[in-house]
Amino acid sequence: MKRIVLGLQYGGGPWQGWQTQSSGLTVQDQLETALLKFSCSTQHCHCAGRTDAGVHALEQVVHFDTDIVRTDAAWVRGVNAFLPPSIAVRWATQLPATSPDGFHARFSARARTYHYLLYNHPVRAPLLVGRVGWVFRPLDVNAMQQAADLLIGTHDFSAFRAVECQAKSPLKTVRRIDMARRGDMIVFTFEANAFLHHMVRNIVGSLVYIGTGKHPPSWMYELVAARERSLAAPTFMPDGLYLAKIDYDTRWALPQEPISAAPWL
Amino acid sequence: MKRIVLGLQYGGGPWQGWQTQSSGLTVQDQLETALLKFSCSTQHCHCAGRTDAGVHALEQVVHFDTDIVRTDAAWVRGVNAFLPPSIAVRWATQLPATSPDGFHARFSARARTYHYLLYNHPVRAPLLVGRVGWVFRPLDVNAMQQAADLLIGTHDFSAFRAVECQAKSPLKTVRRIDMARRGDMIVFTFEANAFLHHMVRNIVGSLVYIGTGKHPPSWMYELVAARERSLAAPTFMPDGLYLAKIDYDTRWALPQEPISAAPWL
Repeated sequence: MKRIVLGLQYGGGPWQGWQTQSSGLTVQDQLETALLKFSCSTQHCHCAGRTDAGVHALEQVVHFDTDIVRTDAAWVRGVNAFLPPSIAVRWATQLPATSPDGFHARFSARARTYHYLLYNHPVRAPLLVGRVGWVFRPLDVNAMQQAADLLIGTHDFSAFRAVECQAKSPLKTVRRIDMARRGDMIVFTFEANAFLHHMVRNIVGSLVYIGTGKHPPSWMYELVAARERSLAAPTFMPDGLYLAKIDYDTRWALPQEPISAAPWL
Repeated sequence: MKRIVLGLQYGGGPWQGWQTQSSGLTVQDQLETALLKFSCSTQHCHCAGRTDAGVHALEQVVHFDTDIVRTDAAWVRGVNAFLPPSIAVRWATQLPATSPDGFHARFSARARTYHYLLYNHPVRAPLLVGRVGWVFRPLDVNAMQQAADLLIGTHDFSAFRAVECQAKSPLKTVRRIDMARRGDMIVFTFEANAFLHHMVRNIVGSLVYIGTGKHPPSWMYELVAARERSLAAPTFMPDGLYLAKIDYDTRWALPQEPISAAPWL
């Protein structure tokens, strides 16, 4: 028995998120259908980060166990032949499945990195539809970065937690929130041990309020202290959100791919 | 009477090219419908370069004549409110309509620049579906550039001319064909006084044959000399083709926008 680990990339626009639904219109459903067609056996996949409807992945990590023997390259090419154009396996590797402290896509993950792409220009960008968020008012990135710095560390993030969130605890440890202006694009990078449901999009929404001058950077501190979702800004659109990287211990020796398939990052 | 000039950007995927059709599913139809809704009068638009189905525009230039008085900003924002998400007016300016040697989007154009984006990687890029061409075999960009250099100057380009082409002459003057590797992306730049129908995609197809080693760079010279479409490679997919820039005399003082809405270029 082998544990097959896949690096998966997808555009979230056509899909109702990662997690399987009766509609079959989720990334998990599409992947499991492709695995069934390729391997002629049913596979149940575990992922590192369950993305929402419309959210993209530069590198989602997925695993499943199987007795079927194929090369890594065959898992990539063979499964891709049965996936729709907006989903692709970028790499595959194989680990032992039997070890009690074995690799697990979700439980072995030490941290997750997301990017949010925000197009900040008076006119919308038709070539980036579904791939970026858009704010037409000028944004003060320095003020936003000041506010974001207040979120670094371990906090109760209830202010940015969706009501549907299934996490056991609202305490998360945020290691990094950066933003960089590249032309008219603002590229956000979020890294944390894990994220609550809608946490990145809710923080982006509140950062945008600060960037337009609706609130000062210190408002972010008030939101965290109040732990009250209704005080923060509405959830920002999913279009600009990308699950970018899962951090695992190097002993698993997972393939390290430069994310060149998203040249705008 | 004013001549309104618009800088238009669009993703070509949903549309059957620029030129009006009875289906209404063309960029011209969508723009003229939006102009009708905004200005409550019928406008007939002239464009600088008639793009094919699936071909994108970073900056298409369009004009029409009207008595209606609006500010430049109102033409941008007002028309965008009636355009679908994949099409947007990026700028507007106004020139006299009555002068016999006045500005004309098509006839005043001195040169056109196109980009072709080619993703060159063993695995397809699901986040770039419809936005790039894809070749999974490694490409020798130096050999391709050598071949492209043979096309610079004024030549009979019948070898790269679609049968449907309506141009009066197959003679065109190519000023520039460059290619630059950026990670796994090859960015082609084509500049000519004008292009024949499918000319860029037909040249890209033949350059790819040379890049994979199927033919030497000198094959390009043979193709041009033979003036026979059937000897050259098939038309390459439209997905990676972008009308990028129209060159006009500076006396028209058209807005110069940096193409930041396509951050992958």
